[in-house]
Amino acid sequence: MRDFSGLAQILIPQDKDKINLKTALCDLPPESVIRVKGTVRLRPDGQENKEMPTGEIEVLAESVEILNVCRKLPFEIKDFVKKSESLRMQYRYLDLRSSQMQYNLRLRSQLVMKMREYLCNVHGFVDVETPTLFKRTPGGAKEFVVPSREPGRFYSLPQSPQQFKQLLMVAGIDRYFQLARCYRDEGSKPDRQPEFTQVDIEMSFVDQAGIRGLIEGLVQYSWPVEKDPVSTPFPCITYEKAMKDYGVDKPDTRFAMKLMDISKTFHNTEIEFLKDALNQPGGCIQAICIPDGAKHLTGKDQESLKQTARTKFGQEVSVVLVKADGALKSPLNRLMPASAKQQLLQMAQARPGDLLLISAGTQECVRPLLGKLRLQCAELLEGSGVAVRDPSAFHFLWVVDFPLFLPKEEDPDQLESAHHPFTAPLPEDAHLLYSLPHKVRGQHYDLVLNGCEIGGGSIRIHKASDQQHVLETILKEDPSLLSHLLEALDSGAPPHGGIALGLDRFLSIIVGAPSIRDVIAFPKSFRGHDLMSRAPDFISEDELKSYHIAVNWPAGDKGNQEK
Amino acid sequence: MRDFSGLAQILIPQDKDKINLKTALCDLPPESVIRVKGTVRLRPDGQENKEMPTGEIEVLAESVEILNVCRKLPFEIKDFVKKSESLRMQYRYLDLRSSQMQYNLRLRSQLVMKMREYLCNVHGFVDVETPTLFKRTPGGAKEFVVPSREPGRFYSLPQSPQQFKQLLMVAGIDRYFQLARCYRDEGSKPDRQPEFTQVDIEMSFVDQAGIRGLIEGLVQYSWPVEKDPVSTPFPCITYEKAMKDYGVDKPDTRFAMKLMDISKTFHNTEIEFLKDALNQPGGCIQAICIPDGAKHLTGKDQESLKQTARTKFGQEVSVVLVKADGALKSPLNRLMPASAKQQLLQMAQARPGDLLLISAGTQECVRPLLGKLRLQCAELLEGSGVAVRDPSAFHFLWVVDFPLFLPKEEDPDQLESAHHPFTAPLPEDAHLLYSLPHKVRGQHYDLVLNGCEIGGGSIRIHKASDQQHVLETILKEDPSLLSHLLEALDSGAPPHGGIALGLDRFLSIIVGAPSIRDVIAFPKSFRGHDLMSRAPDFISEDELKSYHIAVNWPAGDKGNQEK
Repeated sequence: MRDFSGLAQILIPQDKDKINLKTALCDLPPESVIRVKGTVRLRPDGQENKEMPTGEIEVLAESVEILNVCRKLPFEIKDFVKKSESLRMQYRYLDLRSSQMQYNLRLRSQLVMKMREYLCNVHGFVDVETPTLFKRTPGGAKEFVVPSREPGRFYSLPQSPQQFKQLLMVAGIDRYFQLARCYRDEGSKPDRQPEFTQVDIEMSFVDQAGIRGLIEGLVQYSWPVEKDPVSTPFPCITYEKAMKDYGVDKPDTRFAMKLMDISKTFHNTEIEFLKDALNQPGGCIQAICIPDGAKHLTGKDQESLKQTARTKFGQEVSVVLVKADGALKSPLNRLMPASAKQQLLQMAQARPGDLLLISAGTQECVRPLLGKLRLQCAELLEGSGVAVRDPSAFHFLWVVDFPLFLPKEEDPDQLESAHHPFTAPLPEDAHLLYSLPHKVRGQHYDLVLNGCEIGGGSIRIHKASDQQHVLETILKEDPSLLSHLLEALDSGAPPHGGIALGLDRFLSIIVGAPSIRDVIAFPKSFRGHDLMSRAPDFISEDELKSYHIAVNWPAGDKGNQEK
Repeated sequence: MRDFSGLAQILIPQDKDKINLKTALCDLPPESVIRVKGTVRLRPDGQENKEMPTGEIEVLAESVEILNVCRKLPFEIKDFVKKSESLRMQYRYLDLRSSQMQYNLRLRSQLVMKMREYLCNVHGFVDVETPTLFKRTPGGAKEFVVPSREPGRFYSLPQSPQQFKQLLMVAGIDRYFQLARCYRDEGSKPDRQPEFTQVDIEMSFVDQAGIRGLIEGLVQYSWPVEKDPVSTPFPCITYEKAMKDYGVDKPDTRFAMKLMDISKTFHNTEIEFLKDALNQPGGCIQAICIPDGAKHLTGKDQESLKQTARTKFGQEVSVVLVKADGALKSPLNRLMPASAKQQLLQMAQARPGDLLLISAGTQECVRPLLGKLRLQCAELLEGSGVAVRDPSAFHFLWVVDFPLFLPKEEDPDQLESAHHPFTAPLPEDAHLLYSLPHKVRGQHYDLVLNGCEIGGGSIRIHKASDQQHVLETILKEDPSLLSHLLEALDSGAPPHGGIALGLDRFLSIIVGAPSIRDVIAFPKSFRGHDLMSRAPDFISEDELKSYHIAVNWPAGDKGNQEK
């Protein structure tokens, strides 16, 4: 007999007058629901099961009531039975009976409860619910729309309560938090969900250190007791340093293999492509060193690394093996003087048997490329049995001093917000906002765990004039769409800042789940479908009438409606 | 100087070297944000202000920093300043600074936190988030739709997590709760919101008494400490008794004035309209007695009661004054023998000076009519200064044994669910489900507070065959739309039941707010508008393209789009 807490052995008495119990139970399909009354007793000597938490006892049944009979199920409820993802989703109510999913959902509940205790009871935060039927954000292309009963008017499901949390600061709710449901219509992206939950926090009269300290305490307080405790403060590095060492703004610091600039080695090189790379503005040559890479990475592995460089970055990468005698197994070997080779091995801290991945080009291209290959190498090494990252380790990291604006991809003369237009500049860069905005660093901070961004926030602009300048002059957006926020900032807004943690992602890392779907009770498929109820679904034209909308069927598609 | 907790007096030193403080502060517009450093000290003798919580101290300022200057506001932030509802909503971030709104939002947060502690920490409930992008419920005419990127396919924003909570029971999450955001598109109904929050609870292996006891404990545990404690258990009456005594299924039991059946008095009456009423099936004559009504209700009041009867029920009501000598001031007086008058006064427990409201007709009509007039009388009496209901009293009441099905209004031969199709019948009525469904009482329970329904729930059908019978045979609905639920019930579903409490309504009664808008941070207007951000709003045809929908503009209306 099983409930959520585990199994218990039921003993059917062999007495003749209990024969009915035997008949009832033995004919019952698995997963049927029963109520047993009986006596808990120690199992007879030698019949204990040390593998089971309840292995020392059994229940001597006196009566049995069959509460519900189970049909034949599409799969067995056994942890070792592997099911396809789509079958799991279609019968989610069966999938959730697995001990792993029970653990995930129950841990989620407990962790969230601890977070609430910390914020509400320990730190006096006010839990405020904000609307999800809201107005479209300027440029909010990823927001679902909800038609209203007024022709042409739509609500929008917000991607975050950003505006509301700032308005609450203006409203004198000086410490706000909410477990906020957020929506993002991103079509089919791997491991994204159209609705997700963030731990949303905002405070008045706070600085970056204040928010960071609060969150470190929050994580520590809510951390599962069965895991090793988290130590604080979390390390904190700048965006520049993260890009320099790891080639990415969310570094996985559970392993080294950092990026190294080896430009100096090739200062006077005659090798054409390296020379060209160094001569361009921002040009550099960088490397990562894979310890014992020669042994652990096959030729196929090395080819897949080159393939990544080509397809994702349009770049070549040189894979260089360090031989026992310090020579390089590479076309570079004969083109480099011995002193340069010596310097290279020294700078890259490479030893015989290591593999070097070398890339040349602009810093903006080389860093992300090597950052990506660094992670791919870790996976490849782990695939061949090398312990690169401790699966029980949790490396938290703050990344700070992000640029406030980035050049737009489609028009590099234009600037766009690196995160969002409400982030305040660093105080020491504030004067540049009106002269050299592209040089301004923002008071933004990201919380990274094991190489995943699990949260981000900022100190906000609290002066209407600065906010207006950012929106209108720098970002060239129509400030009238945010007039209510600008008016609010002009109505006695305190300095304020906050953060949002991605709860689903955070939990999936804690429980070691491959996907956020494993910490969500009823997730959507990657195409955004609920495979259990078959949502989204067709609805009648009649039902759309009150919303004054009609479906634009693509040519030849209308017939599918009846599917 | 004010923060959320109240006011503190700042003293500007008269020293010459502090003259800059004076200038800075005196020129500052009200509601600007400042940081003051100084020394807290006792106010000089005789300058204490006993009216203020901080009236015994003041802060001798040493330095002042102006953090943000406030513009001229559309209204003053003073509790005595009355603002129109629309101005409050347009500048909600200012309105929320009032001490009442601060109290309401902070109390809401605390009460919810206590509820979570009780459910999660005391009773082992699991907080599970369920999706809000779901499939349309059969007959869910009040569900907002959300277009997806697949032509013609829509999500629906559910009115409650009903299906999910039952699926969670099948999934072995034996105790579930959630503060669930729910959606209902009801157009413009007074004091409804398109999105609202319910405390959603479901349990396995529970009966009605179990749920009632749990909720009584929940209310008691989370009840604000500053209010008189709540005593449990709450009284419990049947639907039949509620209708009989109060003419309504959510009686306000803070006052008497119960309905009385006086049919017997007119058993042999010759008065034509009374005789006709009694002769029809289910015919009756009933009355309520308004103590001292003659004194407190004006002729105009009495006329408004008659008006209600006419316009809302299409019925006449007789207003009868009991004279000092026991005679009736009414055309009935001369038509009734003295003995009948005597009996009437006795049955209605009426004394000289009282008013009787008498209605004759079918029970189905007379009860709701007098139930409505009873409440209207209470309001009229309170309007003229009579203490009918204690404003500090909280009368909780369970109403049980509702009919499971009701005749459809548009086709009385057809049955519809009194609440929803998942409610189980009372065990003693279960056999009638297959023979006389209209006679079946359901295991539904409503929680009523001061005459408002603040919650409702039921023990659910847990056998697929019964659920299929209810959907298909009794309700004539297409069971395939709920095939996932039917399959789930057939997959080892435990007996289960639950409840949902309307959090917004519950809170508004606790804080004595006239509207649920006063306990919601950013509510919509009664037309469903956000007056601050102007949502819902027009969006471009281009933005609708990816959702394959187009707006059907009513003739001549498209021009309004630019408004």
